[in-house]
Amino acid sequence: MHAYNVAILGATGAVGLEIIKILEETHFPIHYLKCLASSKSVGKPIHFNHQTIFVEEATAYSFENIDLVFGAVNKTLSTYFAPFIQKSQAIYIDNSSAFRNDFDVPLVIPEINGEDCFTHQGIIANPNCSTIIACTACYPIHQLFTLQSLIVTTFQAVSGAGILGMNELMDQMNAKEGNQTSVFDYPILHNIIPQIGSILENGFSDEEMKMLNESRRIFHDPNLQVTCTCVRVPVLRTHSLSISCKTKKKFDLLQLHHQILHNPSLQLLDCPMPLNTTNQDLVTIGRIRENEQGISLWCCGDQLRKGAATNAVQIAQFCHKFNLISPRLV
Amino acid sequence: MHAYNVAILGATGAVGLEIIKILEETHFPIHYLKCLASSKSVGKPIHFNHQTIFVEEATAYSFENIDLVFGAVNKTLSTYFAPFIQKSQAIYIDNSSAFRNDFDVPLVIPEINGEDCFTHQGIIANPNCSTIIACTACYPIHQLFTLQSLIVTTFQAVSGAGILGMNELMDQMNAKEGNQTSVFDYPILHNIIPQIGSILENGFSDEEMKMLNESRRIFHDPNLQVTCTCVRVPVLRTHSLSISCKTKKKFDLLQLHHQILHNPSLQLLDCPMPLNTTNQDLVTIGRIRENEQGISLWCCGDQLRKGAATNAVQIAQFCHKFNLISPRLV
Repeated sequence: MHAYNVAILGATGAVGLEIIKILEETHFPIHYLKCLASSKSVGKPIHFNHQTIFVEEATAYSFENIDLVFGAVNKTLSTYFAPFIQKSQAIYIDNSSAFRNDFDVPLVIPEINGEDCFTHQGIIANPNCSTIIACTACYPIHQLFTLQSLIVTTFQAVSGAGILGMNELMDQMNAKEGNQTSVFDYPILHNIIPQIGSILENGFSDEEMKMLNESRRIFHDPNLQVTCTCVRVPVLRTHSLSISCKTKKKFDLLQLHHQILHNPSLQLLDCPMPLNTTNQDLVTIGRIRENEQGISLWCCGDQLRKGAATNAVQIAQFCHKFNLISPRLV
Repeated sequence: MHAYNVAILGATGAVGLEIIKILEETHFPIHYLKCLASSKSVGKPIHFNHQTIFVEEATAYSFENIDLVFGAVNKTLSTYFAPFIQKSQAIYIDNSSAFRNDFDVPLVIPEINGEDCFTHQGIIANPNCSTIIACTACYPIHQLFTLQSLIVTTFQAVSGAGILGMNELMDQMNAKEGNQTSVFDYPILHNIIPQIGSILENGFSDEEMKMLNESRRIFHDPNLQVTCTCVRVPVLRTHSLSISCKTKKKFDLLQLHHQILHNPSLQLLDCPMPLNTTNQDLVTIGRIRENEQGISLWCCGDQLRKGAATNAVQIAQFCHKFNLISPRLV
């Protein structure tokens, strides 16, 4: 049986910890798991498959004899470590935005464009969290009626800013007076912040442009029209999205409901919410209704699961299934 | 000088109390203020202009000698009391949805369609809170470029469900365990509820249909296309809206910015939020950007102020200015 030497780069962050949990839950064939983080986390214990693994410092030499690396660090660190990972001939599944616009790097939601993995050259990029959730929800519409345009408004949880973002919301909840802010530019408790990332010259934020650029790559349609407004809300870890779309072919609601019911990544609900979506892998979808401007729908996805860790592990599973990882035989 | 005998129907609710506060702030010419509520609030003290007014029970006979009634009760109660108010020949400015689709009743945002008040037959309807905020924000676009269509996603504060809604969010924040729900169908703390009101046969909620039906009346355009998704968020009292629109004439951003700066109801901000909008009358607007699908923008308005009480008082001020209320001379 194939089993892999796996490294988690950024093992102590919210996404890194979730990847380790999902690798265990899904019995991913692991021979050896290495947990890498910055020097200040060295020695921290991480539990995996009844073992305790101690965090090691990530360095240029960390990837020798590693087959598969999950990246759960920011763009700058990912860009720094990628050449060392490639040198070790491990496959690198990267959660950051470092390589998502690099056309040599597949950008993959396995159940939509898994086949893009076949051309990988060592790096596969995991899409932006909101993009994964939007594309997963809209895929049945695209399969049946061919998407022409999307207008998306996101309700993004604080987990998108990692453990520190989640702590900041909880600290503001527990504070007797004043709201200390460091992760977000403004207090997030009892507030809604309509800006994530920095604003570009065209007036959109870089987070909003991810939805445009990445959806086009995932659906293989460079002409897909996508307009996005990304908004931070006081929710811990599930993103919600309000989507309006237009299709090229004539829409039929019953046919779509049928397609969704047969899609293993989706759960059709009357009222998808963070409350009934958090801590599992399915994207919940509902409130689908046709109107004179197209189709409107609502969907939710756990940002740390399908929006990040789950999709990364699903990419690894796809690569495992089709022998796209060079394994050590044990 | 004209001064009026004024009654507040629903004086102890969130909107009723806010109307009383704004009447005082704006020095509305009041000869006598009567505070009406249900029998269980009788005798509650309400402070107004250095006086203490004690709440009286609202009955069919409450409106004798009254010139102007502000309604801050639900649709059922408003429908019940309206004939008695009309019999007393008072003018009735109603916050409920009871008369908003009645074409004999003007539905008014004074700075947009104040002239509709001239044809009133005793009742003037105050629009839905989100509709007031959306129309106020989009009016400069409509003035310059003529609106063709709107796609709106709302982030509605719990104040939309009155004092009980606000208490429910605060109770959930303070609860050690479990989230008691009675006002909302689900816990609202750390959650997002994508349904307000009941779902109609077309898949839209009645709250969402208000945005369609009322915007058309306010802008005097029965062909305006409006698609709305109404969502409840854990925010105390300011609604936020993500809006995409198309215009009939060619859009120009600089021209729009100029128009907004000269609109006394709007404040142009980089980042409009509940945090910088709550507890004042302006609708804040920002993030305006053109894209291949039209124009996107973000706006916020205090639901209890411009979204309800302020607009109602502004209707009264308009009627006072143009002698549309029959006053007692004092």
